Amino acid sequence: MIEYKVALIGFGGVNRALVQLAAENNAGWLRELGFQLKFVGVSDLYLGSAICPRGLDLNDLCALPSVKGALENLPGGKALPETEEVIQHSGADIVAEATFTNPVDGEPASSYCWNALNKGISVVTTNKGPVAFNADALTHAAELKGVFFEFEGSVMSGTPAIRLARESLAGSDLVGFEGILNGTSNLVISSMEMGLSFEEAVEKAQRLGYAEADPTADIEGHDVRLKVTILANQLLGAKLKPRDVTCKGISGLTVQAVQDAVASNARWKLIGSASKAPDGTVCASVEPKLLPIENSLASVAGAINAVTFKTRVLGDVTVRGPGAGRTETAYALLSDIVSIHRKKSAVEASK
Amino acid sequence: MIEYKVALIGFGGVNRALVQLAAENNAGWLRELGFQLKFVGVSDLYLGSAICPRGLDLNDLCALPSVKGALENLPGGKALPETEEVIQHSGADIVAEATFTNPVDGEPASSYCWNALNKGISVVTTNKGPVAFNADALTHAAELKGVFFEFEGSVMSGTPAIRLARESLAGSDLVGFEGILNGTSNLVISSMEMGLSFEEAVEKAQRLGYAEADPTADIEGHDVRLKVTILANQLLGAKLKPRDVTCKGISGLTVQAVQDAVASNARWKLIGSASKAPDGTVCASVEPKLLPIENSLASVAGAINAVTFKTRVLGDVTVRGPGAGRTETAYALLSDIVSIHRKKSAVEASK
Repeated sequence: MIEYKVALIGFGGVNRALVQLAAENNAGWLRELGFQLKFVGVSDLYLGSAICPRGLDLNDLCALPSVKGALENLPGGKALPETEEVIQHSGADIVAEATFTNPVDGEPASSYCWNALNKGISVVTTNKGPVAFNADALTHAAELKGVFFEFEGSVMSGTPAIRLARESLAGSDLVGFEGILNGTSNLVISSMEMGLSFEEAVEKAQRLGYAEADPTADIEGHDVRLKVTILANQLLGAKLKPRDVTCKGISGLTVQAVQDAVASNARWKLIGSASKAPDGTVCASVEPKLLPIENSLASVAGAINAVTFKTRVLGDVTVRGPGAGRTETAYALLSDIVSIHRKKSAVEASK
Repeated sequence: MIEYKVALIGFGGVNRALVQLAAENNAGWLRELGFQLKFVGVSDLYLGSAICPRGLDLNDLCALPSVKGALENLPGGKALPETEEVIQHSGADIVAEATFTNPVDGEPASSYCWNALNKGISVVTTNKGPVAFNADALTHAAELKGVFFEFEGSVMSGTPAIRLARESLAGSDLVGFEGILNGTSNLVISSMEMGLSFEEAVEKAQRLGYAEADPTADIEGHDVRLKVTILANQLLGAKLKPRDVTCKGISGLTVQAVQDAVASNARWKLIGSASKAPDGTVCASVEPKLLPIENSLASVAGAINAVTFKTRVLGDVTVRGPGAGRTETAYALLSDIVSIHRKKSAVEASK
């Protein structure tokens, strides 16, 4: 029986949802995917930490109250976060990193990933920071140790984007992409189409739990800029830093402009895109674009995300699905673990 | 240098386009994908056959006139088809099967696949017949010989559907799908929305090269029924034969109904779908459905295909892209070869 030992770095909504998925599906995963998960460590800035190499009880983890230092009450628990201890001494095969995204330099998450990989522990993460700033170095570190650095959830939560392009579209000669990569800003535009002012639309997104108290990162395109950096670097071979991506948000869009577009069979969308020139140069941007209704992104309304891959051989291929949500993002971590499992299994099978 | 030796069964549009892709991209594939292709045999009912273990000249193949017996003029060529000879004696690693689809029993393509696999030759095919009728047996035959049976192109040409669901959505608990899986019928409905009668719309699709002289298979849903059978069996674990899928085409749709739908913000679409009940039973059908404009399939117009995968964990994920076309379908064969190459490479790397 294959059981991966997972250490959870950050115990907010996403890693909690991963534990919940395991509690509900471990038996089914073993049957259908060939493995199940055990959680041997957890560390969280607010909740504290716990190290339990024989595996923490899934029900205890699911039921953990959101109270400062609550992890102290679990076996091997402490009231304070001890992230490095958990990475180094929980005996994990895989670190699931789901702390906050630092849009300036990706820290401290990048260091967590780095330390785990250098200890020979695979890392799965939904955090845009380490991927946007340090993916090459982290991938190289993983390769040196014969382990894996996977980050499908950093772009569209559980909706496959990176893996779809790399695996299912290999050889199609990808030359660019354009996507709706932020559900909050898309929801705001959809609300403005229905008559709300920009301010009212932002408030509505906040009320529905999509927008943060400070919605700047969503509204001004900074979140999309990190995702565009990730896709451009991973799929088009670019070497961009987020600052290299020109960025303009939707705060300049007027209700009039949005409604005029609808009336003329078009839609304003906040589009993150990149394209590769024949000489290999990659140009990337985030900006509102007016799309004719025939464009497959024009009909993507509300909090849904979508990305169109532009290929020379196959033309346009678009994938759309959820772009946020705790369970949806936790699924991305699972899909990363499935990918690791399959690569390891292929190797094992041949021995 | 890895060079796969490919035998082409059928030399119509699709396998010709595969040769054309290789002629244009072999050097790039070697660099980016890690292999290139050589064509060691070809057999076609009309054009004859050729066996050339050192590899047929790509330019000769691309320039082959569409004249009866034309393959006679290539090295090792004969005016008559000798499909079994090509499979058995060309020294191929991979057979690319792209003959016509027999909707009754999948023959003779199934036998071609069977014979190749039993000789230890991997098979890639775009032919719905062998996959809809015999996928389990053929996959089992491949496994026994340690080779591969791949058929991504049998559903949406080069747009990833089977591989997307199996690889990128593994563990998402797929419980069903619904799709627009026939471009011709979708184009006919789109034309009716713009005012053409059913007959005019079919003629237009024929004029554009989408519909066959006898458009029955497209219009009455028989083509979609084969694709639904494939997806239900491959992705939902069903054991359906095409006759188990209830099937109703679009010939009963009136222009009035189609235009009324548009006026009330909905769209008629020919939908192939299947769903799995909690007890594992799979129910599958092909029929026109009235979709609200919010449904992600409603905006799929013209000859484009799309499929929505319904998952318990992630909700709906939709992929849309080309569903036909010579080069697009040939790309599916390439994507199958990429998949074979990666599985073989993982094994080799571990030795």
